[in-house]
Parts: sequence; structure tokens; C-alpha cells
Amino acid sequence: MESARIAAAVSARRPLAEGFFDTLRAKTFDGVGITRASYGPGEQFAHDLLRGRAAELGLETATDAAGNSYMTLPGRDRSGNRTVIGSHLDSVAQGGNFDGAAGVIAGVTAIVALADAGWRPEADVSVMGIRAEESAWFGVSYIGSRSALGTLPDGALDDARRADTGRTLADHMAELGCDPETVRRGPPHLEAASLAAYLELHIEQGPVLEDQEIPVGIVTGIRGNLRVPAARCVGEYSHCGGVPRSHRRDAAIAVSELVMGLDRIWDACEARGQDFAFTVGKMATDAQRHAMTIIAGQVDFSVDMRSLDIAFLDEMEARIQEMALEIAEKRRVRFDLGRFTRAAPGILDEGIKARLREGVAALDIPAMDIPSGASHDAAAFAAAGVPTAMIFVRNANGSHNPDEAMEIDDFMKGVELLAWYLANPV
Amino acid sequence: MESARIAAAVSARRPLAEGFFDTLRAKTFDGVGITRASYGPGEQFAHDLLRGRAAELGLETATDAAGNSYMTLPGRDRSGNRTVIGSHLDSVAQGGNFDGAAGVIAGVTAIVALADAGWRPEADVSVMGIRAEESAWFGVSYIGSRSALGTLPDGALDDARRADTGRTLADHMAELGCDPETVRRGPPHLEAASLAAYLELHIEQGPVLEDQEIPVGIVTGIRGNLRVPAARCVGEYSHCGGVPRSHRRDAAIAVSELVMGLDRIWDACEARGQDFAFTVGKMATDAQRHAMTIIAGQVDFSVDMRSLDIAFLDEMEARIQEMALEIAEKRRVRFDLGRFTRAAPGILDEGIKARLREGVAALDIPAMDIPSGASHDAAAFAAAGVPTAMIFVRNANGSHNPDEAMEIDDFMKGVELLAWYLANPV
Repeated sequence: MESARIAAAVSARRPLAEGFFDTLRAKTFDGVGITRASYGPGEQFAHDLLRGRAAELGLETATDAAGNSYMTLPGRDRSGNRTVIGSHLDSVAQGGNFDGAAGVIAGVTAIVALADAGWRPEADVSVMGIRAEESAWFGVSYIGSRSALGTLPDGALDDARRADTGRTLADHMAELGCDPETVRRGPPHLEAASLAAYLELHIEQGPVLEDQEIPVGIVTGIRGNLRVPAARCVGEYSHCGGVPRSHRRDAAIAVSELVMGLDRIWDACEARGQDFAFTVGKMATDAQRHAMTIIAGQVDFSVDMRSLDIAFLDEMEARIQEMALEIAEKRRVRFDLGRFTRAAPGILDEGIKARLREGVAALDIPAMDIPSGASHDAAAFAAAGVPTAMIFVRNANGSHNPDEAMEIDDFMKGVELLAWYLANPV
Repeated sequence: MESARIAAAVSARRPLAEGFFDTLRAKTFDGVGITRASYGPGEQFAHDLLRGRAAELGLETATDAAGNSYMTLPGRDRSGNRTVIGSHLDSVAQGGNFDGAAGVIAGVTAIVALADAGWRPEADVSVMGIRAEESAWFGVSYIGSRSALGTLPDGALDDARRADTGRTLADHMAELGCDPETVRRGPPHLEAASLAAYLELHIEQGPVLEDQEIPVGIVTGIRGNLRVPAARCVGEYSHCGGVPRSHRRDAAIAVSELVMGLDRIWDACEARGQDFAFTVGKMATDAQRHAMTIIAGQVDFSVDMRSLDIAFLDEMEARIQEMALEIAEKRRVRFDLGRFTRAAPGILDEGIKARLREGVAALDIPAMDIPSGASHDAAAFAAAGVPTAMIFVRNANGSHNPDEAMEIDDFMKGVELLAWYLANPV
């Protein structure tokens, strides 16, 4: 199909995409931003909305045991290797409307537009609305995609608890009518070997495309991560005036020292060109016990470390433990770093990336190569051996906040590229 | 009066003191420790208990506009300069039973014992149960004592808000039937020039007497403080993977850097023998918005800095502001340190200290000189020009926590010394 015809068909479906964004925003606004908790009501609303509208538009719809949604344009050969276009429908608390949802809306818009134009794929193309990608909720990444692929880590169903409810992942799944027992025992809903490709469109979560004034990015690779979701430093609450320095067990100073140690490691990485980033997103004395005049007896915190280099992440697991031990001895406190979680870097398919570069040329869309510092379900598909690629769309003000700002014009260029790829696959 | 007779009279009133401690513990236990919020129900209970029992025992009782309690043994000359024995009846949240209350119970026990022995003072001796000493509640020190002395800072009544309720000091006073307008306009209940002396018994809040195996300390001086009760660092919430380091506005790293900067200043002070201590008792990302994968856009924290050297505290006010500015520029964040509060070091009366040393010798009580790292209402009396002294009683496990451990044997030695002083004043 001609590129111009693809672009015209996609453009004609702009109202469909806009309607999805507007409805999602209206129904999952929390007063400050957007909240679609993993396995919560906002996420469920998004799945019902997308699947319901897709069915009205003639797509085949289905769900799997983990509650992921599939909206399928059937291929001529129903038994051929299908292509999955996916992203997630959950959000962080008080987040933005585009992070995740844009990729699912892009997929539905693309295949509806192609169907409008009378196109039918060789094998099935499924748009996948993925559950529970945001690890803020359960402290585990890629729950929906790894459940579908059969690669969810052992124990996650029963050990991971949602930050706000304290209830297990299995419990939350069951509450929504999903089937955690099938997730646990298999077989997986998606057989990685039977997938032709996985493509994901996502807003860029950094400022690079915005800075460069380029609407679309072709992602070169996805950083892996090593995380400490729920670490604690335990000192001793005591009166801040009466205790000599030599007797203090101050958890606030100890955690500050650990944070600054990680910052020095980052300095060293930058100096030698080693890819690395870390974030202490949570760091809190106990609101029930802390006071201005009491030495902090406890600080809870989280650490997220990222790199494209899996060997360096492995090294960091040992280094953060060593640092914590040294500081604990020096400061007379105890660190309990708790469970580490990890996600391998996502290696993206060179063939699909090359084809996407042909696509932006054919469609005359300004585009650039860009690495992904953030993690995405795409990494889970790549890790399972599925040929995988990602498209970024320009977005101002970062993500995971209410000020995400993606222009629909830019988004529609991403949808064009996605549709073009489906019509011109590797 | 002979020292042995004083000791015997005090010893006979041990059940009175024990009864006060037991009742206070039973009625203000919160499930973890003791909570007697400033102008809260636990503090009110303590005032009613002490004043009520004192009246039954024949003491004159009164309250002032700020709700402080006075339990008075009338002197032969009712117009003579009275001596005040005081301490506070509030506690931190989940604190211990002895911090503050021990001093009021000691005073009542001492004057009741002296009255039992037929002793009558030259001028009135008033035991003062003081309100709202713990700055954890309103972020202001010595509210009760400074209200009584007419030295409460302008604005405190309307600007200081209780940490848990958010309501003003004036509002909390009025709720309990106190008279904030009289506190505001005066005249003060206590005319500093008309006081012969102020004495305060308090548990030691550090481990020094415990380490030295000595039951009683004669306090040499009281550290002043400079405080930042409610500081905030504002960064920018954004996705932790997508934002390059050069664009991050990470409040968690910025506050950690400030904490470590203060710790380096402490190192330098120790090296040159400059008295200093600092505590960051509160340090917290926003529980409503923080997440493992979001750069911290806000950290709220408190800083308490102490020294016997008022000039050094003045210097620290400028230094912490300079440090915050430097870090803000480097880390692209903003520090709002908020209101500073300060309390001058308390200079204690050499004559009373010398007399107390005579007292421990006469009573054969092992004692030592000891500085007070913690702040006390005594500092407010000293600042107002009242000849002031303090007695510390040995106490394990620090204070401001449920594990405070003062032995009643040690406490009774402190009461003996207090009674001895009243019978043998300067």
C-alpha cells in the first residue's frame, strides 16, 4: 500500500484516537493527575474502554489469564506468526494520560485505519493492552507482559504486594476475575516463538526529542534496571540534644551518606562513559514517630539503578551492599536493603529498526535514533526472544507527572509509522 | 533543718511520687509509649492530676493565662521573692513517662515532705507544671515558661501550628479554657525580677551519668539551639529513566548533600573543640506522590542545631543558607528553609550550683558536673535573668522514646537535693 494512502487512512482516524485520550482523561483524573493503578479501577476502565470500542469497530477481542486485552485484526493465514503492537494501560499515581495508553491507542488507531483502507495482514496483528507495567504499584516490572509470555518470576504472584493496599498480586488479579492459577501454571497465552514481532509506541519520558525539535524517535535499546523497592535503615530514636555523637545511631545521616555514595559512583561512570543512572524516589522518616528533636531511628527508602550494561548492574548489586555495610558500621545503624529486583537491558531488533528508518523516510517524518533510559514492556518481549522495536513520540515535561505534554500531531506521525510498518514488515 | 531529717521526710513521701508516675503512665500510654501533646488531653490530665493532688495535700494551687499550673507552699513573708521549682508536663509523641513530669513530681514531693517535717519557707515556694515545652508539637521552644515570663516571641500564638492538628497555638490554648489574649498583652504572670531562683530537676537525656555510674548531675550550662522546623526542597517529579542527569531536579540527592555538608561541619567542630550538634529528625518525600521510579520532586525536612556558643549558632544560620543556595544551583532545585527559631544558651547561676555541690556532700549523694545538650525551660528563666540551676537524674536509653529508664532510687536522691536546697537556699 502506498505511503500516502496509509497516511491518509491514519489521519482520517484521528478522532478515534482523540476520543480515547479524552475519555481516559475524564474518567481517570484524580484531582491532580491521572491514576490508573495496576489492577485498579482506572486500569480496568481503560481495558474495558479500548476492548469495547475495538469490538464495535469489528476487531476480534480477547483477554488472557492475567487480564491483558487483545484487539486483533485477523490475518489471511490465521495460523501464521502474529505481530503484537502493545503498551500498558496502567499509570503511576497522579501521573499523566499518555504514558502507556498512547501505545495501545496508537495500535488500535493504526489497525482500524488499515482496515478502513481495505488492507488485511498476512498473519494476525494483535494490539495488546498490557496490565501492570508500572513497578510503583507492586515493586515488580512488566507484570502483564511477563505473565502473558510465561516469564513472570517465581513467587511474584504471592510475594509482590500493592503499595497502597498491601494485598498480593494474585489477590488483586483474582478480584478482577483474572486467573492467577493459570498465570502460575501456564501454558502462557503468548508463545514467544510464534510471534513475528513486538512493536511498542511510547511517549519519550525525557527531553531529548523536545530539545532536538524532532517528533519521532526510533529506539536503539532499553536500559535494564536493578532495584531495591523497599529498603530500610534502622538507627535508634533518641533525644537529639542529650546523646553524644559517639553514641548516636542516626538513620537520616546514614541514608544521606548512601545516597551521596551512589552519586559519586555516577560521577565516576560519567567520567569513563559507563551508562548509569540511579534514583532514590522514596526516602522517609516514620511520620508516626519522627520529630525535629528526636534522632531519626528509621528511614525507609527505594533505589532504582539503570544501565544498558548488564554486567555493570550485577557489579552494582555487590557495591551497594558493601557501601551499606561500611556506613552501618561507621554510623552504628543497620541497613536492611530487602529484596532486589532486576530487569535485563532490552536489545532491540536491527532489522525492524532499519525498516522503521525506511518508513520515516517514506512518510517524510523527521526522526532520530534515541536510547531508552526508561524501561518498557518491550524489554520483556526482547528478553523472551521476540524481535522487538520501539517508537518514541516527542513529549514535554517528562512523564509520571500530570504535566506530560504530547502533541496529537506528533502522536499521529507515530501512528503513521506503526501502520506503515505493518503494511511493510520485515 | 538537719540533712538527715530532710532525707527521712523525703523518703517517707516516696509513695506519693510513685503514685504520680504510675497514674500518669496508666492514663497517657498510647499503645507504644507516652503521649502528652502540648495543649492536648494527656498534658491536661497531668496538670489536673498534679494540681488536684497538691490541693488535697494542702498546697495553694493556681493556673495562669497560658494554662501553667502552680502548687505553692506559702512562705512566712508572702510578698518576698518566691522560688520556683518547675518542669514541663507535655511529652513528645510515643515518648517516655519521665521527661518533664519527673521535675514537677520532684518539686511537689519535696515541698510536701518539707511541710510534713514542719518546715515553712521564708518566701513562697511554687512548683510550676509548665505547658508545651516540647517543640515537636508547635515548632517553638518553651511556650509555657516564656508565656509566664512574658518572653514568648511575637507572632508565636498565631503563627505556630501544632504538627498534628494544623491549628494555631492560640486556638489550642483557647480550647482548654486558657486566655491567649492575656498571654499576648500581659502583664506576665511571673515577674522575673521578683523570683529568687528557678530550679529544675530533669532526667539526663544522654548516657553520661549511666556510663559514669553516678545518680545525680549538677548542670553546668544549657545548649542553645537554632532550628529549621519545616524546611522544604523542591525539585521536579519526573520519570527516573528518561531524564538525562543534566536535566534532573532531584530533591532527595539535594537534601542528602545538605545533610552531609552539616556532618562535615560537625567533623570540623569536633576537630577544633567547638561545641556543636545537628539533627535532621524529619526527612521525607511526599507519600502521596513519591514512587520508586519517579525523581523526588519534594523533600520536607527539619534541622536542629545546638551549641553552648551563641556566636557559632549565629554563624550557622548564614552557613546553612549558603550551603542550600550552592546545592540548589548545582542540583537545579529550590530550598525553602522556612522560618528559623532560636533559643539562646542557658547560663546557670554559679551561686546556686555551688550550693547544690554543698548539698550533695551533706546528703552523701554521688554527683558530678554535667553540661546539658538538651534544651529546657530553665534556659527561658535564665534568659529572663532569673538565677537558675538544674539537677539531672541518671536515666538509661535516652529520652523522647518509650524506653526511658530512670530508677526511683536515683529520682529520690534528686528530690532530697531539691528539698535540701529549699531548706538551705543561697
